[in-house]
Amino acid sequence: MTAAKQDTRVVILAGGSGSRFWPLSRTNMPKQFLSMGESSESLIQATARRMVPLVGEQSITVVANGGLKALVRQHVPFAELIIEPEARNTAACIGLAAVASLVGADDADPVLVILPADHAVSDEVILRKAIAQGVEAARSKDVLVTIGIPPTHPHTGYGYIKRGKRLTDRAYHVDRFYEKPSLERAEKYLEQGGYYWNSGMFVWRARVILEAFREHLPEMHAGLMQIAERFKRARAAMPDREVGEIFSKFESISIDFGVLEHARNCVVIDSEPFGWNDVGSWDQWAESFKADELGNLVRGDAVVIDSKGCVVRSAGRLIAAVGLKDVVIIDSGDALLVVAREHVQDVRKVVSELKEKGRTELV
Amino acid sequence: MTAAKQDTRVVILAGGSGSRFWPLSRTNMPKQFLSMGESSESLIQATARRMVPLVGEQSITVVANGGLKALVRQHVPFAELIIEPEARNTAACIGLAAVASLVGADDADPVLVILPADHAVSDEVILRKAIAQGVEAARSKDVLVTIGIPPTHPHTGYGYIKRGKRLTDRAYHVDRFYEKPSLERAEKYLEQGGYYWNSGMFVWRARVILEAFREHLPEMHAGLMQIAERFKRARAAMPDREVGEIFSKFESISIDFGVLEHARNCVVIDSEPFGWNDVGSWDQWAESFKADELGNLVRGDAVVIDSKGCVVRSAGRLIAAVGLKDVVIIDSGDALLVVAREHVQDVRKVVSELKEKGRTELV
Repeated sequence: MTAAKQDTRVVILAGGSGSRFWPLSRTNMPKQFLSMGESSESLIQATARRMVPLVGEQSITVVANGGLKALVRQHVPFAELIIEPEARNTAACIGLAAVASLVGADDADPVLVILPADHAVSDEVILRKAIAQGVEAARSKDVLVTIGIPPTHPHTGYGYIKRGKRLTDRAYHVDRFYEKPSLERAEKYLEQGGYYWNSGMFVWRARVILEAFREHLPEMHAGLMQIAERFKRARAAMPDREVGEIFSKFESISIDFGVLEHARNCVVIDSEPFGWNDVGSWDQWAESFKADELGNLVRGDAVVIDSKGCVVRSAGRLIAAVGLKDVVIIDSGDALLVVAREHVQDVRKVVSELKEKGRTELV
Repeated sequence: MTAAKQDTRVVILAGGSGSRFWPLSRTNMPKQFLSMGESSESLIQATARRMVPLVGEQSITVVANGGLKALVRQHVPFAELIIEPEARNTAACIGLAAVASLVGADDADPVLVILPADHAVSDEVILRKAIAQGVEAARSKDVLVTIGIPPTHPHTGYGYIKRGKRLTDRAYHVDRFYEKPSLERAEKYLEQGGYYWNSGMFVWRARVILEAFREHLPEMHAGLMQIAERFKRARAAMPDREVGEIFSKFESISIDFGVLEHARNCVVIDSEPFGWNDVGSWDQWAESFKADELGNLVRGDAVVIDSKGCVVRSAGRLIAAVGLKDVVIIDSGDALLVVAREHVQDVRKVVSELKEKGRTELV
């Protein structure tokens, strides 16, 4: 067990800018640092805390941009921090974490558990069980593991994974990854069975994912090898200006698009449900709570009359909602958002417009 | 001209409690004391100011309940103030003003111009012209005059008046008063022609309206005569406890229901349009302004995206509206209202619920 602990690192990706959670999230206060649940714990704090029983505080790394350094130190003081030189999507970020994990010992090849910093999980015991299964699979075979979530309804906001042959008790080879589907297609997936939601939680050995980079993103792989050399010479995973220059030339591509969809050694863990929610929008945020009998979710001081399917989150002042259907109302104290539930993704447009207008105090 | 001025009094009815304009209007700050237009002038200030060129400051009376005394003095310092002992609808209030106007001279019989305190008017020159025509009709004949507004669209929120025979150039006998109609009926009225919106602005001599009370509301008339006696003895229109007791027994009925619909000496002035709006709801409030090309009316700091037919009124903090249709958003600073446009009348329900919950700071 001790060996296993030392051999496994949790890498938390905290690069998200989260303009979809405006007005609560801001450029210097992205979603992962907000408390989005019933407790005062932020999403990143919860993500890290849930992994402590599995790997211990000393085996948790957070990858974030430099502007968030102080926030990461405040929220997860025990974590190792890797500064990504700039935002370059998940492939570059995961590659950087992989080469960083090799610093120190020539024969190092830790199992890396890659977790988004900003997802909600209601049953952490089951989550840890699924991740432990992923770790076991990644340790024993040269595979790229995704934690698969059994879909409960035909969600169109998630990617799907179709499983292939069984590998072990709860692990299957991946037959195919699918993009966010139409409702019709999502319904078919559910009907057919054998599909999972792609949680964006991955497990692999550092050298296995780097080998996949070599095959599917060879240019990025070459850059990562240069970075690895520099880290090795400096005996630390501290990106300097030269690393920044290499990094800035990396393609901005997700690990799914760039690597996993092309790799043939992908595995999906058939997890039991653990109340997972990627909290991708105010709408999805509301899904993590139980609404009242009219489908309204109300937090804070509010009066809701003759309304259905609404989300109301007050920041102290009373909000009165009357005769509304599927409307989301979020008060941050200094700004107020009122958005139709089917347009929650367009909250980004507000942030863009405020930026254009130079309203920096609000973005 | 001098004689005419002395002989005409404007009586402004300021008794409205205006819970429909929550969260801006409150029990101790009803709508008529709010600035609802482009200027900082309150509705009652504008109502009084518009009449000054016609009758002079010394001939303006405001009738309001005791709790609003300080506000009336502040907003219309030059007006005579009559305190109505309690809220008893327009018939009792108008009766009280009529007997009050007789105090002083035994043969007094002033022409009274009755105006609601909380209506909006955009062309005051035409308004004064219409009222002057009403004054002329009321002075020369024993008639009860209503200022009629030529309808511009089939509004279902107003009462209608059907005109009968022509009396003078712009005055017609009233054929009938109609309640707020269905849309179908309102469309018919417009098609047929000869109908007016009932503005709630009236002109009559004091003794003519009191005679109508005698005929159609005899009990109230008897009470008013008792009050007249007390005023005469005190040589002042100061309601005391005894007046309060008489008043409290008066039926709570509108002047339209109680008197005008039964009277046969009603006259309607065929006014040119003067941009009249009774500002009866947030929806109607919005009608007094020019909306943008998508039908949105925005006041204050706001970002409105992909929305139609919305009303957004900020009180300083930014309001962002996204993907909404026909939603009214009103921020008062300490409370926020979000209501579907077709449910604006239900804002009263918010006030009721807040009262029930003992949230006196907000009502």
